[in-house]
Amino acid sequence: VHVRILGSAAGGGLPQWNCACENCALVRAGSDRIERRTQDSVAVSSDGMNWFLLNASPDVGRQIESFPELWPTSGRGSNIRGVILTNGDLDHCLGLLVLREWTPIVVYSTERVRRGLLEQNAMFRTLQRFAGQLVWRRLPPFEPVVLEDAFCEISGLSVVARPLAGKLPVHLEGLVDAGAEDNVGLWLEDQLGKRLVYAPGVAHVGGLGNDLSGSDCVLLDGTFWSDDELLRVGLPGRRARDLAHCPIGGEDGTLAKLGTIDVRHALFTHINNTNPILRHDSPERLTVERRGWVVASDGMELSL
Amino acid sequence: VHVRILGSAAGGGLPQWNCACENCALVRAGSDRIERRTQDSVAVSSDGMNWFLLNASPDVGRQIESFPELWPTSGRGSNIRGVILTNGDLDHCLGLLVLREWTPIVVYSTERVRRGLLEQNAMFRTLQRFAGQLVWRRLPPFEPVVLEDAFCEISGLSVVARPLAGKLPVHLEGLVDAGAEDNVGLWLEDQLGKRLVYAPGVAHVGGLGNDLSGSDCVLLDGTFWSDDELLRVGLPGRRARDLAHCPIGGEDGTLAKLGTIDVRHALFTHINNTNPILRHDSPERLTVERRGWVVASDGMELSL
Repeated sequence: VHVRILGSAAGGGLPQWNCACENCALVRAGSDRIERRTQDSVAVSSDGMNWFLLNASPDVGRQIESFPELWPTSGRGSNIRGVILTNGDLDHCLGLLVLREWTPIVVYSTERVRRGLLEQNAMFRTLQRFAGQLVWRRLPPFEPVVLEDAFCEISGLSVVARPLAGKLPVHLEGLVDAGAEDNVGLWLEDQLGKRLVYAPGVAHVGGLGNDLSGSDCVLLDGTFWSDDELLRVGLPGRRARDLAHCPIGGEDGTLAKLGTIDVRHALFTHINNTNPILRHDSPERLTVERRGWVVASDGMELSL
Repeated sequence: VHVRILGSAAGGGLPQWNCACENCALVRAGSDRIERRTQDSVAVSSDGMNWFLLNASPDVGRQIESFPELWPTSGRGSNIRGVILTNGDLDHCLGLLVLREWTPIVVYSTERVRRGLLEQNAMFRTLQRFAGQLVWRRLPPFEPVVLEDAFCEISGLSVVARPLAGKLPVHLEGLVDAGAEDNVGLWLEDQLGKRLVYAPGVAHVGGLGNDLSGSDCVLLDGTFWSDDELLRVGLPGRRARDLAHCPIGGEDGTLAKLGTIDVRHALFTHINNTNPILRHDSPERLTVERRGWVVASDGMELSL
């Protein structure tokens, strides 16, 4: 499996348009202690020619331009066969509306995510200009699904969606009830049995270790280092756990809860602009790396 | 009036994610005959400190990062006081959903554009996390409106919205009836009487000359050079005029219809990736420049 980290930041990216925190200010000042990051998305392929995106971030346009494998080679078209969504958050779905202009696209998601997006939003009609432009396929929880493009060509990859503790997208809160299928992790596997786990939103990591072990690569929720990180930059009342992200550090954090896991490549992604692990020289970064974890950055590639 | 061209391309930008036309291929190859462009948007200010965006493109995040005047200076906040919309097209409005994360914002548009966006789209609830986050103010056709931020501080700018021949956004076609207020041009003026006209979508330019004359700057619809431009790249049945854009060239085109107008700075913007005027050395570019017009590019600044 070819894996390209297209974006590694949480919603808003780094820097975030309205934020002048230490990390955002360092990036704008051109510091070499931290890298600019676009919003969370991954490109995967089993053959290096047909690609699927894991989530479609609002930055998908420049993410495509940053990775020549995704460029069209003649006329109109794309090497992107489809998009697999982990939830209906805007930082994971807004990019679908960027992928318009008459090229067919397949979207895989749970039924709840599909309904939350399509039934509440006339904008998606822009992807329905002709029959077959937008093909939505269901990910039933815990069932392996073979990934196919809009024309039912098989990609050599299969995926299992596992519901993970999460929350409704902000814009649907108070409009629909929450459900178990609002947020999933993706367990992808190729025909040689190589396995990639992508779980950018996890509220509770307890018990997850067994499901991760034996994977070739894990891309895990690294949104916040601490539960009170947003409070410290002046956003009262917004704790990491309220936002359905288990913090990395602390007694109840991901590092402590997961313990040692048997994974070849373990990466934190979906990293919020306030997270100290983003700075190369922070004590938190050192802690993460000593435990064998890598802080994902835009443009990283792995071959599994 | 300070004017910064944040983006100068039509929907999709240059290059466009699924296009390998001559222009898109040249940009990807790093040619010095053409510049990369983000989607159409302009920042304006009368004091250089408080800024309004004319349209909010899907690229607004990187457009802000490209222009330090729009960076927040401490904590959370922004120098962007509001956004003025010319229509409800996704390439002009999707950026509103990027400007989330707890900073109040004012949007000015016609009542029809507001309803088309808000009533058909639960996503905008993400901008309604607290009372006063999203303040929508009406632009009544032909009436001067003094621009104010969310706290009713006056910006030193006023705007008149004039309905222009246009069309419904693609995603609302067949859902609501078309109306005269679906598409407007913006006539902005500061307290010294300096005038900027911004009209990125114009289906018929006949009679527009009088309304433009005497302006200090005109940013006009430069989407297509010819009516059949999209047909030539393999998109049958999509003529410039069907898409409500008067082509620049030809007997019935903008250059011929407008004739000579008395304007200090005349620029074409909202330029589609297929338009030959984008190449420095094309005959069409030469024609435009000989007639006194400038082809807008990202990052251009004007002081009126």
